[in-house]
Amino acid sequence: MDRIKETIERLEPLNEAAMESARARQDTLTKPRGSLGVLEDISVRVAGITGDYMPEIKDKVIITMVGDHGIVDEGVSAYPKEVTPQMVYNFLSGGAGINVLARHIGARVVVVDMGVASDLEIKNTGKNFIDNKIAYGTASMTRGPAMGYEDAQKSIEAGIAVLENEIGTGVDILGVGDMGIGNTTPSSAIVAFVTGEPVEKVTGRGTGLDDVGLKNKIAQIKTALEVNLPDREDAIDVLAKIGGFEIGGMAGVMLAAASHRIPVVVDGFISGAAALIAYELNPKIKDYLIASHLSVEAGHRAILDQIGIEPLFNLNMRLGEGTGATLGMSIVDASCKILCEMATFEEAGVPDKD
Amino acid sequence: MDRIKETIERLEPLNEAAMESARARQDTLTKPRGSLGVLEDISVRVAGITGDYMPEIKDKVIITMVGDHGIVDEGVSAYPKEVTPQMVYNFLSGGAGINVLARHIGARVVVVDMGVASDLEIKNTGKNFIDNKIAYGTASMTRGPAMGYEDAQKSIEAGIAVLENEIGTGVDILGVGDMGIGNTTPSSAIVAFVTGEPVEKVTGRGTGLDDVGLKNKIAQIKTALEVNLPDREDAIDVLAKIGGFEIGGMAGVMLAAASHRIPVVVDGFISGAAALIAYELNPKIKDYLIASHLSVEAGHRAILDQIGIEPLFNLNMRLGEGTGATLGMSIVDASCKILCEMATFEEAGVPDKD
Repeated sequence: MDRIKETIERLEPLNEAAMESARARQDTLTKPRGSLGVLEDISVRVAGITGDYMPEIKDKVIITMVGDHGIVDEGVSAYPKEVTPQMVYNFLSGGAGINVLARHIGARVVVVDMGVASDLEIKNTGKNFIDNKIAYGTASMTRGPAMGYEDAQKSIEAGIAVLENEIGTGVDILGVGDMGIGNTTPSSAIVAFVTGEPVEKVTGRGTGLDDVGLKNKIAQIKTALEVNLPDREDAIDVLAKIGGFEIGGMAGVMLAAASHRIPVVVDGFISGAAALIAYELNPKIKDYLIASHLSVEAGHRAILDQIGIEPLFNLNMRLGEGTGATLGMSIVDASCKILCEMATFEEAGVPDKD
Repeated sequence: MDRIKETIERLEPLNEAAMESARARQDTLTKPRGSLGVLEDISVRVAGITGDYMPEIKDKVIITMVGDHGIVDEGVSAYPKEVTPQMVYNFLSGGAGINVLARHIGARVVVVDMGVASDLEIKNTGKNFIDNKIAYGTASMTRGPAMGYEDAQKSIEAGIAVLENEIGTGVDILGVGDMGIGNTTPSSAIVAFVTGEPVEKVTGRGTGLDDVGLKNKIAQIKTALEVNLPDREDAIDVLAKIGGFEIGGMAGVMLAAASHRIPVVVDGFISGAAALIAYELNPKIKDYLIASHLSVEAGHRAILDQIGIEPLFNLNMRLGEGTGATLGMSIVDASCKILCEMATFEEAGVPDKD
């Protein structure tokens, strides 16, 4: 618990002086002022996050956290639990969506077992896999808490440790992603509970539920909320009762990144639910979060509205893993390159507007 | 004229068989079907464009066409004409926005003088600069046609030649951009005339006009439309009377790319106006056009609606040069990599949904 508290308390506001210098530099670059729109705004924010008015993004890291969910036994997912470990192997052999997109943008992917419900057979545990298994999946939250309070703490602490360990190798920007069959269900439960939106409104089809499946999923979430009665004032209690190990892990990763002044690119719905937990723990994290895309998943908009951030794009994506975050990171990288590499009016001898 | 006709007549519908194979492959990849949304759709379209169900995008090319505009003498721009040649030098020394973003995505930039109003002093005319100057800027379209009919033809033909010349070096995807002080004015004139929208609705502030400047710009466009009465059935006449050399050049580049089954990523408002001219010449080009972003410039939405295409993102950009196209090309590239590089369920041993 001390590590969580320490991390949370280390969060600081953006560096205003760096932002002012970055904005001033943007206005000297050879383009009409403001003509690169959001790209200019993002670069200024990254300056505020890092404290460097010309921030360079070299080391891009995607941390993909994996966990299983007891609620899957209640029929809330179109895919079986067996997919979770197979997808970990797919991540480690480079064949998943996140691998392809991470290669595309030049990011490294770190896969973390936060609570896969089976023993993973991984031979060469290299730098790209971390075993932080807290349990063999959560319990079904329809019958009691998904995990104990201490395990919820552990999951956040593990996330903090993962990020701080990665800093040694280099992290200029962080993307956060998830994998875990069934994990839209706890995410919807968290979003409904924290935002106060009706369960129906923030619950979607996940990997592809039909109408009957969606109806059941909504009913299961309602039951979970009634059975558990989470404490609205204690985000760790929310995570324990209706969350998941990878959700806690991602919240920890995000908090740690913000505490080290590293920009965090959030992926979609499940990493968004983790961002919401992190935000509940310390709203100052908002300044460090860059929402990549708006997910197809029904409850994502409610998360973004609750935190008060706007996504960069909407490409009707809903895969997770950090896939949307990769494309977002590339845009953030582009925005910083504009700030650092473009010629000024003076350098280029271009007459400026009066 | 023969070259324009030949090019236009070479446009064919998308290759349905390649699209079907691409869609079938998408459905075998280790992700829930459709979960990469627009990325899946784009990759299928690129398959249809290229005829290859696993299209690889290696050579990315941005063609940035430059021209001056007589209408600038009527006070329609916040910047002086002198900026146009200085920006060409900036392009060639790698300091402009387009250079930074092209490096970011690994594209080469080809700069074409289609009608800069001064003699450019370029020492080492390398592969990245082409001199196709048709005239020293257009005439003011408030007093007669911006250019003669033959010069309009020449500008399109020059664009075709530029693209066909680049094919020798390799063009797997094309981005089209513009530079030219004052060129939102002819673009708004073209959009108002072709779409039938009121001039007020499709005319924006360009590089940063104030209210008085905007009012004047609108009045000048109305005058130009009244003085010239373009022929609605002849897009070359529209280009001649209220267009620009770089706009004609971009239309030619796009038509040539489509005729060679190369996907075309359109940038913003001015390249959009060029796309509209190309579309008027042969609506089949629509299938080959991928709109990158929605520009801040007022009339861009009318262009997209007229052609019937949707932009990939909206980052409040309005710089031109091809800057938005670069980010769009990177997304298209990502979509094709997903199609080509992701593991199938079978390869990864991942159980599929029933």
